[in-house]
Amino acid sequence: MIGNSAFEHGGNLYAKIRETGGCSSEILDFSANINPMGMSDKIRQTLHDSLESIIHYPDAQAHALKQAISQHYLVDYRSITVGNGAVELMYILCHMLAPKRVLVTAPTFSEYEYAAKASGADVEYVYLNESCGFEIDIEAVIKQITTIDIIFICNPNNPTGTLLTNKQLEILLSAAKSQNTYVVIDESFIDFVPGGNFYTCRHLLKRYDNLIILHSLTKFYAIPGLRLGFSLATPEITMMLHTGKDPWNVNTLAQNAGVVALLDVTYQSLSRNFITERKIELYNSLLTIKGLKPYLPSVNFILINIKKTNMTAGQLRQVIETYNILIRDCSNYPGLSSEYIRIAVKRLEQNNILIATLRKILGGI
Amino acid sequence: MIGNSAFEHGGNLYAKIRETGGCSSEILDFSANINPMGMSDKIRQTLHDSLESIIHYPDAQAHALKQAISQHYLVDYRSITVGNGAVELMYILCHMLAPKRVLVTAPTFSEYEYAAKASGADVEYVYLNESCGFEIDIEAVIKQITTIDIIFICNPNNPTGTLLTNKQLEILLSAAKSQNTYVVIDESFIDFVPGGNFYTCRHLLKRYDNLIILHSLTKFYAIPGLRLGFSLATPEITMMLHTGKDPWNVNTLAQNAGVVALLDVTYQSLSRNFITERKIELYNSLLTIKGLKPYLPSVNFILINIKKTNMTAGQLRQVIETYNILIRDCSNYPGLSSEYIRIAVKRLEQNNILIATLRKILGGI
Repeated sequence: MIGNSAFEHGGNLYAKIRETGGCSSEILDFSANINPMGMSDKIRQTLHDSLESIIHYPDAQAHALKQAISQHYLVDYRSITVGNGAVELMYILCHMLAPKRVLVTAPTFSEYEYAAKASGADVEYVYLNESCGFEIDIEAVIKQITTIDIIFICNPNNPTGTLLTNKQLEILLSAAKSQNTYVVIDESFIDFVPGGNFYTCRHLLKRYDNLIILHSLTKFYAIPGLRLGFSLATPEITMMLHTGKDPWNVNTLAQNAGVVALLDVTYQSLSRNFITERKIELYNSLLTIKGLKPYLPSVNFILINIKKTNMTAGQLRQVIETYNILIRDCSNYPGLSSEYIRIAVKRLEQNNILIATLRKILGGI
Repeated sequence: MIGNSAFEHGGNLYAKIRETGGCSSEILDFSANINPMGMSDKIRQTLHDSLESIIHYPDAQAHALKQAISQHYLVDYRSITVGNGAVELMYILCHMLAPKRVLVTAPTFSEYEYAAKASGADVEYVYLNESCGFEIDIEAVIKQITTIDIIFICNPNNPTGTLLTNKQLEILLSAAKSQNTYVVIDESFIDFVPGGNFYTCRHLLKRYDNLIILHSLTKFYAIPGLRLGFSLATPEITMMLHTGKDPWNVNTLAQNAGVVALLDVTYQSLSRNFITERKIELYNSLLTIKGLKPYLPSVNFILINIKKTNMTAGQLRQVIETYNILIRDCSNYPGLSSEYIRIAVKRLEQNNILIATLRKILGGI
């Protein structure tokens, strides 16, 4: 199947359903990092109310959505490009900037690399060191950027959960600026971070014209099937992105859902509190399973070294799939190996099923 | 507003609503070429039933949708790339093929030109001759393709409604092949053509590896707000398009709607019959308005020369907007002038309101 061989992400529920003939409600999907609070009632209601409006084209200016983004994140309207998911904007950015050499950390979200290669770029890696908890070494990155056109930084980083401070990122932005290197900071998980405003680079947009921020709205608001994201950059880069994309790229339902989502401060704070509790609970439970070494999570997913289980990630994935549980086998991440899996933080009862199943397979300590 | 100045399409309902503070139900939109039968109940029901599934990622393989396309249009599964609207695929195709010179007819759908320019190409025009009813002169096109990398042909052509036969297109495909020129045939309105199977180039895909077909599913099924289209090409080009796009580009609701739409043969044949009747009725009514010269329509829109009204298209658009009616001012189409407007064919009662309003503004004959 075209695209299938290259496609190794989490959240590939449909492949599992096709394989087994099961249905999605029977499957516990820990492989996709989606807010376990699920879609809010406000979004659900908006989608119901908006269904008839899809007989019209979407607003090509995405005016209400851009206004909502501008107000919620305190950013200049003219810096915003809305995307059919943040991933669409990675591809358009690479197509339009046509970089020769792109730098990514290893491990990180693999679509940066795919988008870069799609535009013909060579991809170089900064390998993150497990012994330092996969912390991104800014000095090591800076040493490598002399011949680099674009560097992608995922903050917090998927799948490791490591988080860079503003101070660290400013050092990078400044060094990159002197080399004419663009720095793309993907803040798709920053809404999950308690005190995320302390970590975001949004306020640095005015100072660094080489900064491009990507932001997904589908993970935090649990609407990945609808597709919604945005980028923030200088008006010049924003204009370039608008030129490089089709004018109706964000569908009407996603635009309407986004407006309602960004106004829903109750859902936002409940989600952050809920996930903060669940992730620590789940982390502590994982420590009671034989052979697992989880990394302290910053957001709604946990990287786990499973070396001491004497199973590979592929083997564990296969075994746990027989219990209708999906986990992310991380062996195809550059910079990781078959010793790593990633799981999403879900609701207490779901996390308990995962823990009980892992205990059944691997034993407790 | 970014993108606004360049954005001059039909269906720009939201700009009108923002300007006037009106609501969409009060506006009669003749500027967008959408099936006047509206969204089918089957699609409506599917969308309602699918809403909860958007908490999962879309199927990156779009397997069920590709199967439905393959079965309905009798095309090889491996030739299909699904798109967030057909327009997305124009941009990805241009980004990936990186043409130096692109040829478009003038007038035609303007996104070919924008997509070509976004990828850095120079755009050349084959001007269509009004005195020949804007027929596309294949020999004139062939004379111009020697230095051309991609030619875009819209069949039936938007906004003129002219339709090329298979025989004409084969002459072009064959000549283009010998020059290593890709021919993109946009069949986005072909489902509206009675006997469209006689005009489609789908069966030529096996013979011409330089043929790429684009196809929108949102106009015929009245779901432009949802975004859905596809392309057909050789497996090699299809693989390239998959490499150049993000894997989740078609949202879950659009995938599900597409599957249901393609199975709904009743809606398909009712729509074609309904529009065939309405378009002739409307064409005949337009002939009774002073100063209008409508072109015989092939599908669900009608190009009209308004020179003898002594109004420009911009003036007529402004006046008729005060009656809450939107029409397409065609003056920004290369190859047309301020003498042209385009209107969509809608339901009888809506068409009657348009005719009565035009008669009020322009007078009858």
